[in-house]
Amino acid sequence: MSRQSNRTTDSKKMNSELFTLTYGALVSQLCKDYENDEEVNKQLDKMGYNIGVRLIEDFLARSSVGRCQDFRETADVIAKVAFKMYLGVTPSVTNWSPAGDEFSLILENNPLADFVELPDNHNTLVYSNLLCGALRGALEMVQMAVDVKFAQDTLRGDSVTEIRMKFIKRIEENLPAGDE
Amino acid sequence: MSRQSNRTTDSKKMNSELFTLTYGALVSQLCKDYENDEEVNKQLDKMGYNIGVRLIEDFLARSSVGRCQDFRETADVIAKVAFKMYLGVTPSVTNWSPAGDEFSLILENNPLADFVELPDNHNTLVYSNLLCGALRGALEMVQMAVDVKFAQDTLRGDSVTEIRMKFIKRIEENLPAGDE
Repeated sequence: MSRQSNRTTDSKKMNSELFTLTYGALVSQLCKDYENDEEVNKQLDKMGYNIGVRLIEDFLARSSVGRCQDFRETADVIAKVAFKMYLGVTPSVTNWSPAGDEFSLILENNPLADFVELPDNHNTLVYSNLLCGALRGALEMVQMAVDVKFAQDTLRGDSVTEIRMKFIKRIEENLPAGDE
Repeated sequence: MSRQSNRTTDSKKMNSELFTLTYGALVSQLCKDYENDEEVNKQLDKMGYNIGVRLIEDFLARSSVGRCQDFRETADVIAKVAFKMYLGVTPSVTNWSPAGDEFSLILENNPLADFVELPDNHNTLVYSNLLCGALRGALEMVQMAVDVKFAQDTLRGDSVTEIRMKFIKRIEENLPAGDE
């Protein structure tokens, strides 16, 4: 599906439940389509990436956020502006590595996982992996290569959901990015 | 994915763009999975139905809406409360049949279809058909059998998006409903 040029920045605020259930339908469909959890995780990451590279434009238009000075500022913008805007929650930013190139987003409450319990035969499914891909894709479009993954997940019995983000490098060339 | 019992009615308001793009990923995936548009339309309707039968409980808890007196009241609640809540838009209710058993929801702006253009080879795809299924499923849970379909769609060149709803019958027995 290609993008229309007449997008607006009209804000349509919605409750998250329809999104949550629709996301559940997507994950269920992928679980039917692919052999194993690893493959589903990969697809979710890829879909997320393609979403991220599109969403960043909307985000920059809506948020009026400028270029971040450092990875700490990036972390704050992701948590306080982007998550709040698109998921309605504000994770806390924590567990910084001494070098300042890694941090965690801690979600007390993951809207994607509301109403969800993983079936026993999907215990390696990274249910919300689309978020990792979206973060990776969006940041790539602002010249930041990052590694993003779930370190903890309430769906797997952890007490919080933790997304770990690692800065890899600044992307020098602004190459046009297409779908993966 | 089964439902957790500890759902809350905390409202998480989010912008619609991540939902829109995620829905696009779902439709794209179904287009890959199924042979033709008709089959995709059917799947979207079925997924929507399963979503509707779950969402109604959340809706009733959140909205404090009681039993509707007639189909006109139902129409108003759908447009002004449910669409507003879960999609952030308020369609107008119009084109009532003389018997009062059919009406249309007119969406000036369909959040599901933002950024979307249908590819030429999908000209019978009812892109937003999940909505029809969701309405059907939700209403079934409050003992109303309805027929729901898209009568017009801006994605197919119509000037507005029109969802046509027809009351079929009151469901007398409150049978437990499962997934279709």
